[in-house]
Amino acid sequence: MGYFGGVEAGGTKFVCIVTDEHAKILAETRFPTTQPEETLQKTADFFTHWMSEQRLTLEAIGVASFGPVDLNTASETWGFITSTPKPGWRNTPVTPVLEKALGVPVFFDTDVNGAALGEGRWGAAQGLSDFVYLTIGTGIGGGVVCAGKPLHGLVHPEMGHIYLPHDRQADPFDGCCPYHRDCFEGLASGPALNRRWGVPAEKLPPDHPAWELEAHIIALALSTFICTLSPQRIILGGGVMAQHQLFPMIRKQVVEILNGYVQSKTLLEETESYIVSPGLGNQAGSLGAIALALRGS
Amino acid sequence: MGYFGGVEAGGTKFVCIVTDEHAKILAETRFPTTQPEETLQKTADFFTHWMSEQRLTLEAIGVASFGPVDLNTASETWGFITSTPKPGWRNTPVTPVLEKALGVPVFFDTDVNGAALGEGRWGAAQGLSDFVYLTIGTGIGGGVVCAGKPLHGLVHPEMGHIYLPHDRQADPFDGCCPYHRDCFEGLASGPALNRRWGVPAEKLPPDHPAWELEAHIIALALSTFICTLSPQRIILGGGVMAQHQLFPMIRKQVVEILNGYVQSKTLLEETESYIVSPGLGNQAGSLGAIALALRGS
Repeated sequence: MGYFGGVEAGGTKFVCIVTDEHAKILAETRFPTTQPEETLQKTADFFTHWMSEQRLTLEAIGVASFGPVDLNTASETWGFITSTPKPGWRNTPVTPVLEKALGVPVFFDTDVNGAALGEGRWGAAQGLSDFVYLTIGTGIGGGVVCAGKPLHGLVHPEMGHIYLPHDRQADPFDGCCPYHRDCFEGLASGPALNRRWGVPAEKLPPDHPAWELEAHIIALALSTFICTLSPQRIILGGGVMAQHQLFPMIRKQVVEILNGYVQSKTLLEETESYIVSPGLGNQAGSLGAIALALRGS
Repeated sequence: MGYFGGVEAGGTKFVCIVTDEHAKILAETRFPTTQPEETLQKTADFFTHWMSEQRLTLEAIGVASFGPVDLNTASETWGFITSTPKPGWRNTPVTPVLEKALGVPVFFDTDVNGAALGEGRWGAAQGLSDFVYLTIGTGIGGGVVCAGKPLHGLVHPEMGHIYLPHDRQADPFDGCCPYHRDCFEGLASGPALNRRWGVPAEKLPPDHPAWELEAHIIALALSTFICTLSPQRIILGGGVMAQHQLFPMIRKQVVEILNGYVQSKTLLEETESYIVSPGLGNQAGSLGAIALALRGS
């Protein structure tokens, strides 16, 4: 028995929730991401208010944050947002500020690692030890669970920034990643769709050729993730993946691209349950933060 | 105290060793990989002979095998070489045959996961929890250690078979992978170098433009591995990497390709100790098998 706090710290908005240990949501607030001091103050206030009103203490708080972040617990800047291009947020001590304000242990990871953990506990990856959660929206990012644990390694994965074959005859668009031009994110994020076709992604009709190309780029990236991370399942979330017509196209192309090399019934014959939508929908981020709190505490 | 057996089960040759628990080699044999029955019989004979001569029993045997292999311990074909194109070896029950012949527990993994574990225990990745061992030779394969454990997931990584940008104006070579044509292995393996330039790789002089192109392709692949697996170090072995002039070129290009996005002093300022040669040289495979035996027993 116990109560837990979760913070989905996004570049656009923060979502804060309180749940019981079964992830039943007892309180929730959402507000835009403004400057760090104000945003973290609002976050702390929400939890302080809940605890004083309920006369209860939270066991732990999980923060699933936009990045890049410092996940090295031995580092002096653990729990910081580090080299983000987001104005004002560079080198922001998210975890230290919240721990000091609340006196509750705070556990911290990337937004996508949090979402992956949440999907593993309550969503589309229950019972699996090795899987990928990929979000394709304003940016592209991936969370990875390996042997039941979120993958950190040197820093954390940056799955949107891999390079893929780019046939400029079929797709002369240069790409829009400020760091890499035509990396995966530069070619397949929401803003890339917008710039390539001249209209926002959500205004492109479902039978527009944009989606066949989009599915092709995503399938190339998934094939790379399969060859490097060998996931037991891949979960695709984010605004672009609200276009559900993409799923069958992506599944078909992944199998074609791998061309029988990776021999797995799961991949070859059960592709519909191999490449899937998130089970937690738009609560994947905040419940992912709860998964971090539960895991740490 | 105890004695351990290691089998480097390669597609060309088998290397069998006996060591103490400090990996001191006490006996060794090497023989060409012929048909499965004969090759596994020779393997069993070597260990049987050693045990009867020394009047000692082995605690465990590790087998680091060419693949693809079945690593799922819940599977009926665990310890099998599965869908290999190598004639005669498809669906070979390596582990069951050796366990039956020797009455000793046998632990099994890919050759590259074995080599990675060996490098972690005694070689170039000591003290690290997350790293990659990549071999670039007749084929290209990668072993991955995540949070101290070899990565399996759905099957196991197939790191040679990712697609990379391929500028056909600069490099009109079609690639030579029978499954994927111009995947990483199809463009950068030893046979690819041979076919592209018309001479065996070892006959190309160190200042030949082949090496600049080779370093570029390898650097693209390493950038992908950094963005997906976030390793703390990358170890590059195999015949092609005996060309040591490749190392500085690869390091420089990896940093250029990532273009400051992955903020890590280790990667940006200590690149010489980030992308390195194996510490165990040509014993990486057989000592990797010993690492498997030690890990399992």
